[in-house]
Amino acid sequence: MVSGIDSAKLISDLDKDNITIATVCSHSSLQIFHGAKLEGFKTLGISVGEPPKYYDAFPLAKPDEFISIEKYSDLANISDELRKRNCVVVPHGSVVQYLGVDAFEEWNVLTFGNRLALRWESDRNLERKWLEGAGLKMPTEILDANDISGPVLVKYHGASGGRGYFIARSVAEFEENIQEGVKFTIQEYVLGTRYYIHYFYTPFSNDGYTVQNGNLEMLSADRRDESNIDEIYKLGSQEKLKSVGMYPSFVVTGNIPVILRESLVPRVLEMGANAIKGSFEKFGGMVGAFCLETVVTDQLDIRVFEISARIVAGTNPFPSGSPYSDFVAPGLSTGRRIAQELKRGIELDRLDEILS
Amino acid sequence: MVSGIDSAKLISDLDKDNITIATVCSHSSLQIFHGAKLEGFKTLGISVGEPPKYYDAFPLAKPDEFISIEKYSDLANISDELRKRNCVVVPHGSVVQYLGVDAFEEWNVLTFGNRLALRWESDRNLERKWLEGAGLKMPTEILDANDISGPVLVKYHGASGGRGYFIARSVAEFEENIQEGVKFTIQEYVLGTRYYIHYFYTPFSNDGYTVQNGNLEMLSADRRDESNIDEIYKLGSQEKLKSVGMYPSFVVTGNIPVILRESLVPRVLEMGANAIKGSFEKFGGMVGAFCLETVVTDQLDIRVFEISARIVAGTNPFPSGSPYSDFVAPGLSTGRRIAQELKRGIELDRLDEILS
Amino acid sequence: MVSGIDSAKLISDLDKDNITIATVCSHSSLQIFHGAKLEGFKTLGISVGEPPKYYDAFPLAKPDEFISIEKYSDLANISDELRKRNCVVVPHGSVVQYLGVDAFEEWNVLTFGNRLALRWESDRNLERKWLEGAGLKMPTEILDANDISGPVLVKYHGASGGRGYFIARSVAEFEENIQEGVKFTIQEYVLGTRYYIHYFYTPFSNDGYTVQNGNLEMLSADRRDESNIDEIYKLGSQEKLKSVGMYPSFVVTGNIPVILRESLVPRVLEMGANAIKGSFEKFGGMVGAFCLETVVTDQLDIRVFEISARIVAGTNPFPSGSPYSDFVAPGLSTGRRIAQELKRGIELDRLDEILS
Repeated sequence: MVSGIDSAKLISDLDKDNITIATVCSHSSLQIFHGAKLEGFKTLGISVGEPPKYYDAFPLAKPDEFISIEKYSDLANISDELRKRNCVVVPHGSVVQYLGVDAFEEWNVLTFGNRLALRWESDRNLERKWLEGAGLKMPTEILDANDISGPVLVKYHGASGGRGYFIARSVAEFEENIQEGVKFTIQEYVLGTRYYIHYFYTPFSNDGYTVQNGNLEMLSADRRDESNIDEIYKLGSQEKLKSVGMYPSFVVTGNIPVILRESLVPRVLEMGANAIKGSFEKFGGMVGAFCLETVVTDQLDIRVFEISARIVAGTNPFPSGSPYSDFVAPGLSTGRRIAQELKRGIELDRLDEILS
Repeated sequence: MVSGIDSAKLISDLDKDNITIATVCSHSSLQIFHGAKLEGFKTLGISVGEPPKYYDAFPLAKPDEFISIEKYSDLANISDELRKRNCVVVPHGSVVQYLGVDAFEEWNVLTFGNRLALRWESDRNLERKWLEGAGLKMPTEILDANDISGPVLVKYHGASGGRGYFIARSVAEFEENIQEGVKFTIQEYVLGTRYYIHYFYTPFSNDGYTVQNGNLEMLSADRRDESNIDEIYKLGSQEKLKSVGMYPSFVVTGNIPVILRESLVPRVLEMGANAIKGSFEKFGGMVGAFCLETVVTDQLDIRVFEISARIVAGTNPFPSGSPYSDFVAPGLSTGRRIAQELKRGIELDRLDEILS
Repeated sequence: MVSGIDSAKLISDLDKDNITIATVCSHSSLQIFHGAKLEGFKTLGISVGEPPKYYDAFPLAKPDEFISIEKYSDLANISDELRKRNCVVVPHGSVVQYLGVDAFEEWNVLTFGNRLALRWESDRNLERKWLEGAGLKMPTEILDANDISGPVLVKYHGASGGRGYFIARSVAEFEENIQEGVKFTIQEYVLGTRYYIHYFYTPFSNDGYTVQNGNLEMLSADRRDESNIDEIYKLGSQEKLKSVGMYPSFVVTGNIPVILRESLVPRVLEMGANAIKGSFEKFGGMVGAFCLETVVTDQLDIRVFEISARIVAGTNPFPSGSPYSDFVAPGLSTGRRIAQELKRGIELDRLDEILS
């Protein structure tokens, strides 16, 4: 697997019988540790400051050990320590966000999945190239604000967790809301219900839904809860609210479980398959957990507005199975699936295909 | 059980030890096949075109065999084949929709449940006669559009999956939105939260919540996700949206799990019991899975706006149990409950009461 | 534990080997009985009128016996009978509501938890003293309606289940909506997503998330469904709806499962810990199940708008485990947790710490 570091050497240095699964204490770490423990792995939490107390409330998801760092940027400095402790790091959204993609790529420790995928997901141009190149339909990008002729989503660059988005329905509304001196992109606002679909791709089996000689699985789906957009409508019209200084915002605060109409599932799987195929064309393949963030219109068109090439927090409602993973193996979570894959890679001596 | 075909003969021709549970590959088929397999039945999927690949992603819900037809209307032509393969068909929403009620009634193959119930549910007049006759409160029907004096739901005939509905609050709004030359019905829009309640009625036990000498069970509840009504409010006022050509629509795209306030549950069960009693009065009884689609007002009145006399897709969030079915048997799904009932009918030699 | 009755005597009179868990037939009783039965307790339902039939549909949650009373106020008169039957009563929202806090405090029967906590939760002034004293952030109270300068929630006194609330955004809107001659409180309307967090506090272990020498657990989280506020937005602007006589209302009709962003969980546990600490300072400690009702703003601030010092109906989606309790013990419900605690108290001969 291609990456900025010599992963072949890291793999050969690994003591295969004593791997510790490590991740940063946040995001989906409860589920990752829980799954790792169920599969018999040792676990290590990386915390900023003191080892966090909250795991004490969740004994089956508490990591065996902790490494504490002072600030998130110190993540870059503990790769020696992580290697010494024989760790494989499962990168989730916070890991990548705190390290930054550049530092993540150069991070000299084994990580689960192909880390190039995280470069491609985090750059909006590469992401669009990857997904549209693979035949997925994304919301149209609008290059000139004067071309706004219907609802659009305006995203500020570097905005994360849902901050720094706004909706405008016309050039006038765009001009009323846009901040000066900040970079942004404008895209068509596709109206419909939102489904965040959690997939898993394994190169180790090809007896199921096969793609590129591996199997694609669909493990669950969720909807994000966003503050304040999911409650502001209760206060009456947005027009009136603006007059008292209240604006809609899109900060993710939680998740609810959902399932999709079964007639959409075949297309949802094809979309996952296409994302996988595109990843092999573009950067050697994405493996493990990933998520397509979709909107389903009232014409039952499915549009993808984002890809996450790693475990997403939307899998957190399902630590003990989901309405989809229960058809794969009863009680299976994405966190546990990751640990199973690592075990499988050890048994088959094919870790090079799933670590980078 | 009364139906257009000789079900007694079909039952006597059935090889009871080798029944295959069949259904059309859509709607709630994953759950139906999953439940059938858990109970040890062989399974057969009926697909339009090639056997669909999506089951490969869900090995525990994949049918053992497939029959492929070219187009849905060909369903009518495979009854010989289905009988030859010793099938009992579990009809779900897509089966009935694609065959049409008339053809479904004449379909010469054993189906789970009393197929007359599907005639009564699919005709809005019969449905109202059945439910109101049984004492269930439905939204008032408005026969003359000039009588609109508050929010109403206007439904076009033959509309399915939520397309072809709109809400109007006055005669003027009705006239602004109605399409010419299309048949419609107008009913009171009952404002409140929506609960789709999934029941099961068995004639084989009467040691529980007994109705008509059988047991009524309540297996789960869900809320439908509808595109675009469940997101359009984020864009601001509907009045303004209409000016950019965006109108609310009601196409079902998914489901979320819900539970009801416990103090409503006694009435919810009484409503199910009344629907059953009414079915025995009107057409010899409804058996197996059914669903009441309800609205709960802020006065805690419960109104029924529709009945589905078969498994609904809203049961799909619960393939491994629900907050209600777990009080009946841990991990029980509606799909599995259907398979259990079939097994029970074989053991008791009473298939005539549950098949038609 | 301090209370208006001699609980030490009640405990010494209790036949520890034959305890019956009793509660009123409503609210969260299915879950309480289900959990009690799983832990091997006998169960007794207190019904107003005939024993309700609805339990017959849920055999695993049906109480072994019933006591029937004519009207809720008769609850006060059956304490002798409940003691004779060797009962411990699990108080839920309906128990307290129907008895009234004064009568509940003098009710001469053992109840689970510290009944003083229910005094403190039910009086808005005491509740605020308790929570703000413990460092929890609540919405600001507005003492003079003329000070309204942004969205506020106006609550009528004694309103329960969500009736008797309204939202106003200005002095004018307040005056337009307020009923004459009714007592009310006004508080800041904190805009954000709502999470109802279900905790459990045990004095019997201190090997986990320790607070006051006991363990704090987080068992689940839900969102309330409210009629008609959760649907009224579909009809268009509230301004227009008022012209046809439709006003938003906030009556709880159900619950949906949710999870919180993991980075909020440490603070959520701290908030629970602070509520516990405050309870020990103010009234000898709250034990067992409790709930903080929170809003998460788009700045990821968490505000508490209410505490329930007992099992809440929001735990009902989770009779067989939740995304949080599964990290404590697979399949654990709050109802079962209560029964386990009672068992533990018997084994350790420390019932005085959990009953009052």
